[in-house]
Amino acid sequence: MTLAVHLLSCTPEPDRTVAAAARLCYSDASAEDLLAKIEEKKVMGFLRHLRRSGHMSPFEHASFSFAVDGISRICSHQLVRHRMASYSQQSQRYVAMSEVDVVVPPSIEADPGLKERFLNLAASSHEAYREFIEEGVPREDARYLLPHGWRTRLVLTMNARELHHFFRLRLCRRAQWEIRELARRMLLIARGAAPLLFDVAGPDCLVEGECREANPCGHPCVSIEDLLADETPL
Amino acid sequence: MTLAVHLLSCTPEPDRTVAAAARLCYSDASAEDLLAKIEEKKVMGFLRHLRRSGHMSPFEHASFSFAVDGISRICSHQLVRHRMASYSQQSQRYVAMSEVDVVVPPSIEADPGLKERFLNLAASSHEAYREFIEEGVPREDARYLLPHGWRTRLVLTMNARELHHFFRLRLCRRAQWEIRELARRMLLIARGAAPLLFDVAGPDCLVEGECREANPCGHPCVSIEDLLADETPL
Amino acid sequence: MTLAVHLLSCTPEPDRTVAAAARLCYSDASAEDLLAKIEEKKVMGFLRHLRRSGHMSPFEHASFSFAVDGISRICSHQLVRHRMASYSQQSQRYVAMSEVDVVVPPSIEADPGLKERFLNLAASSHEAYREFIEEGVPREDARYLLPHGWRTRLVLTMNARELHHFFRLRLCRRAQWEIRELARRMLLIARGAAPLLFDVAGPDCLVEGECREANPCGHPCVSIEDLLADETPL
Amino acid sequence: MTLAVHLLSCTPEPDRTVAAAARLCYSDASAEDLLAKIEEKKVMGFLRHLRRSGHMSPFEHASFSFAVDGISRICSHQLVRHRMASYSQQSQRYVAMSEVDVVVPPSIEADPGLKERFLNLAASSHEAYREFIEEGVPREDARYLLPHGWRTRLVLTMNARELHHFFRLRLCRRAQWEIRELARRMLLIARGAAPLLFDVAGPDCLVEGECREANPCGHPCVSIEDLLADETPL
Repeated sequence: MTLAVHLLSCTPEPDRTVAAAARLCYSDASAEDLLAKIEEKKVMGFLRHLRRSGHMSPFEHASFSFAVDGISRICSHQLVRHRMASYSQQSQRYVAMSEVDVVVPPSIEADPGLKERFLNLAASSHEAYREFIEEGVPREDARYLLPHGWRTRLVLTMNARELHHFFRLRLCRRAQWEIRELARRMLLIARGAAPLLFDVAGPDCLVEGECREANPCGHPCVSIEDLLADETPL
Repeated sequence: MTLAVHLLSCTPEPDRTVAAAARLCYSDASAEDLLAKIEEKKVMGFLRHLRRSGHMSPFEHASFSFAVDGISRICSHQLVRHRMASYSQQSQRYVAMSEVDVVVPPSIEADPGLKERFLNLAASSHEAYREFIEEGVPREDARYLLPHGWRTRLVLTMNARELHHFFRLRLCRRAQWEIRELARRMLLIARGAAPLLFDVAGPDCLVEGECREANPCGHPCVSIEDLLADETPL
Repeated sequence: MTLAVHLLSCTPEPDRTVAAAARLCYSDASAEDLLAKIEEKKVMGFLRHLRRSGHMSPFEHASFSFAVDGISRICSHQLVRHRMASYSQQSQRYVAMSEVDVVVPPSIEADPGLKERFLNLAASSHEAYREFIEEGVPREDARYLLPHGWRTRLVLTMNARELHHFFRLRLCRRAQWEIRELARRMLLIARGAAPLLFDVAGPDCLVEGECREANPCGHPCVSIEDLLADETPL
Repeated sequence: MTLAVHLLSCTPEPDRTVAAAARLCYSDASAEDLLAKIEEKKVMGFLRHLRRSGHMSPFEHASFSFAVDGISRICSHQLVRHRMASYSQQSQRYVAMSEVDVVVPPSIEADPGLKERFLNLAASSHEAYREFIEEGVPREDARYLLPHGWRTRLVLTMNARELHHFFRLRLCRRAQWEIRELARRMLLIARGAAPLLFDVAGPDCLVEGECREANPCGHPCVSIEDLLADETPL
């Protein structure tokens, strides 16, 4: 596997749906009427206003499901710490790991000697994994010797409010490169489906214009174009 | 206003999306492939299996947004106690209540004398509301004298797992008639959009075949047909 | 009833517990050891550091339960919109409302004529409520004519992270006076139990030094002393 | 490290606090009065009644924080999927893994040959980990080659309602032995602190008297005494 992220499904007309729900709070019309009649050019204005004033709750009405293949279980462990989300993950208890399938970190990829040693260890672990299973060890136990970098698959659903929160934390340079690359691809996809909801999204430096980290990365504030272009090959 | 419930938006192909996410856990294929290839007749089997064994987490990947008009603020207060959901509600702080608009409970509707007194009190309260505002009282304060039964509007988003939980509690005869009628209409609509996800949904007596209430209603277990047909006019 | 807020229960040693949990992330010691050995003067530094950098998740380990008596059901409806919390509220379905018991907004309290009319309407509503019940109307239906300002009781549990969020929204002058007064009393109590966790808490202007509201209140940024002293009599 | 679970902190008087909050819903007294006056023998009755009828929301007012040392990152990955909880986990990005420290599954522990091979692989991985770091690879990257079974520490807070849910899923024989052993120790500790809240807790077979799993374990329903005595040495 290599890293692959696809949009499995999302709320239809996500920009308009959120704008209509937000309008309802301050209007005497029904949400159905608001959704039908809201002018396209006003949607942008409403959504910007909500984002800037921090009134993000209407963003919850738009939901996005991603199919994610090929992240490491280190990355998935970080990912599932986001609790305002839904996950279905491939089980290592039930699915056999039939081939060596491990994420090689860029710092190791860059050094042929380290990379070879890394892959040899992964292959030895996987060989033992298979032999342990042949000896009668359950899959769920044999996997204790597979390396942390082993790849996994999952389906992940988040609403647009939580996605903004996720992008804020995980597109920061202080996040690890793997979940940052996952977040970058998710943001590219989310902007394709809901360009107005995700017009501006990313770390504090991009969204708020300043960094709150106690130990900042030292880089200048990033633009959304640079952020989206900054691919980590995985 | 009278009670009106509409589906504002929902995850496309909700039945298949949930089935594909559930399959991923036990498969070596990607979610995208699973979604494309899953046979219609197998979707039903997977979803039934999940529901019966109580493995409801994949149901979270399908999300439903409802436009609800004309419930009382008593009902909306009960409704928003469901925390695994998203709400945008018409604000009485910002929107003027221009006409008398109150839910009359069936037990009062049935007695012309009580109904007249009820409506007269609502009219007196609304008259005072308007005059207080003319005297300079803010809307947010004047509303303290409007009756509890005053109607409101909201947009409500729940995923299919939480909807099942909501239907379990609120379609029970021990729930109040108003939120039960809201739940009945939501279930009718949800079944239209996702017939397999909501094939069986409702109170314990219907879903589990037995009641857990300490003080049961005394009626026999309800069938889903009877449940869906049992309208309360509002 | 008048408004009364008490601390029913809270995590013992809340400041130290949060600091120990936060330290664990960056340490090779056990949480038990960290809790036993952490120096008092370092607790303050850790907690400040967490708050300033927005790393609030360790604040979730300290939990606070409040007994709240005498807020209106308008206020409780706003309150229960905070979903990261637990509520047990007095039920108007099961408990009879034996006396007139209604919050009079300060803008109405200030005008003897309006106040008299307000209280007369509340009394008429309550009289009808009692007579409807005598006529056989269930309590849960008769309450549809009680005014919105009717008082209620509840137990409310929030962790320190959600309390900070609650104080940020509800201690702002843009929040309604009633929930702002509730929040003020909760903050006074929380600071008594956990002075370091709630050393700085309140609206954006106080915590961040600037307002994000699209329509700011126009007042200068508030100090925590002024915030805590600004009582609304209820 | 070996597995160690301690109670770091919990709500004082958890049984009484929950009972008082539950009573409030059906009473005209304040929660403070109810907490002071509730008779010990009635607490048991209330809590049983709530549990049997499935009205678990008052259980949320009692919160428990555990210090957990020595579970594998396989187990912690399963654990943090419980979203109604708070976690602070030792970071492998910031803390160096100075010694080989890995959970050996019982099925491997039982076979000296497999165990030796398992530990040799863990030692080779750790040796490479250290050398990679010496070569300039960041800790967060070097850890990609450590085995899944590597031990971790965390602080975990759950309320009594979520603990019941956790025990239901994770004390079932269908759960993996490691998280089942963690759950067993947590239940022992929780019963020590709140004997009435956790009077009856565990898998469906114990609590409901029947199994819902599509593929049951085949064992007879477990008693709570047997459940609590069934230690897995780790």
